Amino acid sequence: MAAPLRIALAQMNPVVGDIEGNLAKTKEMLRAAADAGAALVVFPELTLTGYPPEDLLLKRNFLARADAALKDLAASVQGITALVGWPEAADGLLYNSAAVLTDRQIEAVYRKQLLPNYGVFDERRWFEPGSEPLVVDVDGAKVGIEICEDMWEPEPTRCTAAAGAEVVVNLSASPYHFGKGREREQILCTLAREHGVHMAFCNLAGGQDELVYDGHSLMIDPQGEVTARGPQFGEALVLEGQVAEPLEREEEVYRALVTGVHDYVRKNGFERVVIASSGGIDSALTILVAVDALGPESVVTVTMPSRYSSEGTRSDARAISENLAVELHEIPIEEAMAAYTELLADAFEGREADLTEENLQARIRGNIVMALSNKFGWLVLTTGNKSEMSVGYATLYGDMAGGFAVLKDVYKGWVYRLVRWRNEREGRNLVPASVLDRPPSAELRFEQRDDQSLPPYDVLDAILEGYIEGGEDAEQLVARGLPEEDVRRVIRMVDLAEYKRRQAPPGVKISTKAFGRDRRLPITNRFRG
Amino acid sequence: MAAPLRIALAQMNPVVGDIEGNLAKTKEMLRAAADAGAALVVFPELTLTGYPPEDLLLKRNFLARADAALKDLAASVQGITALVGWPEAADGLLYNSAAVLTDRQIEAVYRKQLLPNYGVFDERRWFEPGSEPLVVDVDGAKVGIEICEDMWEPEPTRCTAAAGAEVVVNLSASPYHFGKGREREQILCTLAREHGVHMAFCNLAGGQDELVYDGHSLMIDPQGEVTARGPQFGEALVLEGQVAEPLEREEEVYRALVTGVHDYVRKNGFERVVIASSGGIDSALTILVAVDALGPESVVTVTMPSRYSSEGTRSDARAISENLAVELHEIPIEEAMAAYTELLADAFEGREADLTEENLQARIRGNIVMALSNKFGWLVLTTGNKSEMSVGYATLYGDMAGGFAVLKDVYKGWVYRLVRWRNEREGRNLVPASVLDRPPSAELRFEQRDDQSLPPYDVLDAILEGYIEGGEDAEQLVARGLPEEDVRRVIRMVDLAEYKRRQAPPGVKISTKAFGRDRRLPITNRFRG
Repeated sequence: MAAPLRIALAQMNPVVGDIEGNLAKTKEMLRAAADAGAALVVFPELTLTGYPPEDLLLKRNFLARADAALKDLAASVQGITALVGWPEAADGLLYNSAAVLTDRQIEAVYRKQLLPNYGVFDERRWFEPGSEPLVVDVDGAKVGIEICEDMWEPEPTRCTAAAGAEVVVNLSASPYHFGKGREREQILCTLAREHGVHMAFCNLAGGQDELVYDGHSLMIDPQGEVTARGPQFGEALVLEGQVAEPLEREEEVYRALVTGVHDYVRKNGFERVVIASSGGIDSALTILVAVDALGPESVVTVTMPSRYSSEGTRSDARAISENLAVELHEIPIEEAMAAYTELLADAFEGREADLTEENLQARIRGNIVMALSNKFGWLVLTTGNKSEMSVGYATLYGDMAGGFAVLKDVYKGWVYRLVRWRNEREGRNLVPASVLDRPPSAELRFEQRDDQSLPPYDVLDAILEGYIEGGEDAEQLVARGLPEEDVRRVIRMVDLAEYKRRQAPPGVKISTKAFGRDRRLPITNRFRG
Repeated sequence: MAAPLRIALAQMNPVVGDIEGNLAKTKEMLRAAADAGAALVVFPELTLTGYPPEDLLLKRNFLARADAALKDLAASVQGITALVGWPEAADGLLYNSAAVLTDRQIEAVYRKQLLPNYGVFDERRWFEPGSEPLVVDVDGAKVGIEICEDMWEPEPTRCTAAAGAEVVVNLSASPYHFGKGREREQILCTLAREHGVHMAFCNLAGGQDELVYDGHSLMIDPQGEVTARGPQFGEALVLEGQVAEPLEREEEVYRALVTGVHDYVRKNGFERVVIASSGGIDSALTILVAVDALGPESVVTVTMPSRYSSEGTRSDARAISENLAVELHEIPIEEAMAAYTELLADAFEGREADLTEENLQARIRGNIVMALSNKFGWLVLTTGNKSEMSVGYATLYGDMAGGFAVLKDVYKGWVYRLVRWRNEREGRNLVPASVLDRPPSAELRFEQRDDQSLPPYDVLDAILEGYIEGGEDAEQLVARGLPEEDVRRVIRMVDLAEYKRRQAPPGVKISTKAFGRDRRLPITNRFRG
């Protein structure tokens, strides 16, 4: 069933803080919507500033410029109605608002009522909640307005429908996690059917630091049928009748990583990235993602063998770089290691070799990638996965050294899954089968440490997912059948590694609970959970 | 004018998450208060969990254990009334509450009404606000109850007084910044006079990650006179008539640093710390603070000269360690630098030496202190000051490598001030005059970088303080008479260094706006403020 007016969803990818650039992009999409004959064009939440602007919202001149941009935009709107998000400073308070722009004027303003303050969200830090629904007349149709969180609880839509809305539009900045698009689709369908309204949901696209916005904008009719679905992750102007197919699970996650890397690198002005390639599965996936995000000419790899590197991993590192047509440097680290051994000989006299020497190797490699970064202006992408980051199997200032941690939120099991999927998609082994088939026990840092051996990855990942994403404690995990000794040891390791994660680079959130702003724990913490 | 009942303020230093330990300490102070003849003993906010427990509050078993601890405590209270803070889970919601314990029972519960969600605070993330004042009868006196933020706006105390309170007690976890104690004292005096009530304020003591709680608990009579003042920073049981003198400004800041270092190191179970000593003023102050916090036997210093180190700084480094009787290692870094030069020769062929080589030296030093840390279990204290952290004059994984950044929130001008004060206090130069007198231009990294020379420290610090703490923009700073070119360049450098600060270790907050949880800015950010 068609909506009572022609709506365009401007699924935009703004840059946080780039008010002038976002304004220009908004005007461009506004013109495209008018050209497509839309009567109403809906932009995402905080269109003009990007989301989340965080403490930029505490800056007087930031708010003033956002306000000036809104007025500039309003003056350019004619023959169409536009819904645009911006931070509204009024009477010394700040609101997360949407302006209704029509006939070169700000016709009305809606203030977001539900301000999320959980997970990655801190909206109560900056905004006051609004308290009133808003329904406006657009070309004879009654259009109700909501912003993001307003749709995640029943009350605001109930009030908007009760106020007479036939169409409820939602300006959103809803970040991605596994399957989030399907969750939103179900919520919107339920609301549409329950209130007999059309729902039109416009989400942000693109990456911002730890977050990726997956687009997936939607129009739903009062029967709960999807009448428009925007593409996932990319920018698009979405009109009714355009229904993109949702991606399969592996592709969805992979595209989230690609989007996160692309936007972090490009929005921060880097031309190339450098990745330490060990010949292992983590660096293989990191290189795949980087090449798909940036193109092979933007990716440099460097392999840094020591006496412990096998010929197998060295040749795999070469094969991956060759298959993907990326530059490869080979810089053996033995001489630097020898120099440190010499420097530290007195201080370490009488002491056995231990983790210290392993960490030193990792830090020499970290120094080398950072030296390449400094000399050539390349951004370092790190390769550690979430299983490692969880239990602290990563070296601070070593393999953790870099600007962006691509797999920070990807468990080891998923690393394998994504590499297999990408090989299959290609129809050939971009990553050699030997990398996939090599038993994890031989290839991973984990198993090199006899003093702290870990359970197999499937058990490890199950414990981690339950503890971190599921919020389950040891008792609950054991009741689910996970081995008690492993559960206790793994939980303890996760808790103790908090100090390392606090110094980790940002990375793409793909789970319901990523390390970073999403999960805030004290370092000084004696709780044994 | 004496309060209508004998009150003890239990200015306690809990450990976050150590519910059993905090319970034991609470019982101990409860006994001491009873022994001192108190009718009422007041503990700080969230007594049993420490503050802030952050996302531990999302854990089912954490809340259950805190609740069990409260019941255990209640059963031990007799012949006295105790006010104790804990997270109260009720009907699926969580409150930041205070329990009134008397006659082995929980007699009543007050729920914090004002939940701070600015600066370092995120209380809306976990708690629902309460909505009712609470006044209870203790030995015939009417006692009203508040928690921390409730006193920072007028309404809650007005309601509590209107409900008949003669004494208003406040359970607090109010973190330190310059002069915060005087601010609180003024607010409490105003409230006491305005409502004709006694105010009894009990604050936390000690350090927790980035925060230091300065104690400075207070009793104020209805005339606005201070009738009790607890010591700053340390634990104490404070009774009416005990009035500690507030510390002078330098000593207050210095003690904040000492407290922060002591508690971070000891609460995390470290026995010794290691500090890279350059012979400069920053490492000198860091060593002074560490020795005063932990004792000389817990502090190890290491000097790591290169060909660029002068004999003056090398002998100053030795003198500082000798004067403070701390262990000193000397590990020259030339050989490691030579090894890297060799390793990178091919990759760097045809390129001039630049910042890359400077950073490599800093990273070799970082590797050495981390190797000492790994081998001997020492915590690395870093030495960078706030002026450097602000503009990004610090090397990631180099001089920024470590567990705790002692001077992270101390501007360069204050570094000098504190060293001078500490020398004077000692009556001799613990830090040689040559370290203080050496012109900054010769001694500091800043001036080594001709491509990015900075304004003199007094101008730099004025710009930084206005921009960071003051929230002023370029226009406002220039209007205050600061040189426009410097202002623009410094602001730009602060904005661009956000990615470095994100990977910095925590450090002691002493200003109104510290880097860390207090100041949250996007890395990907094109706003030019």
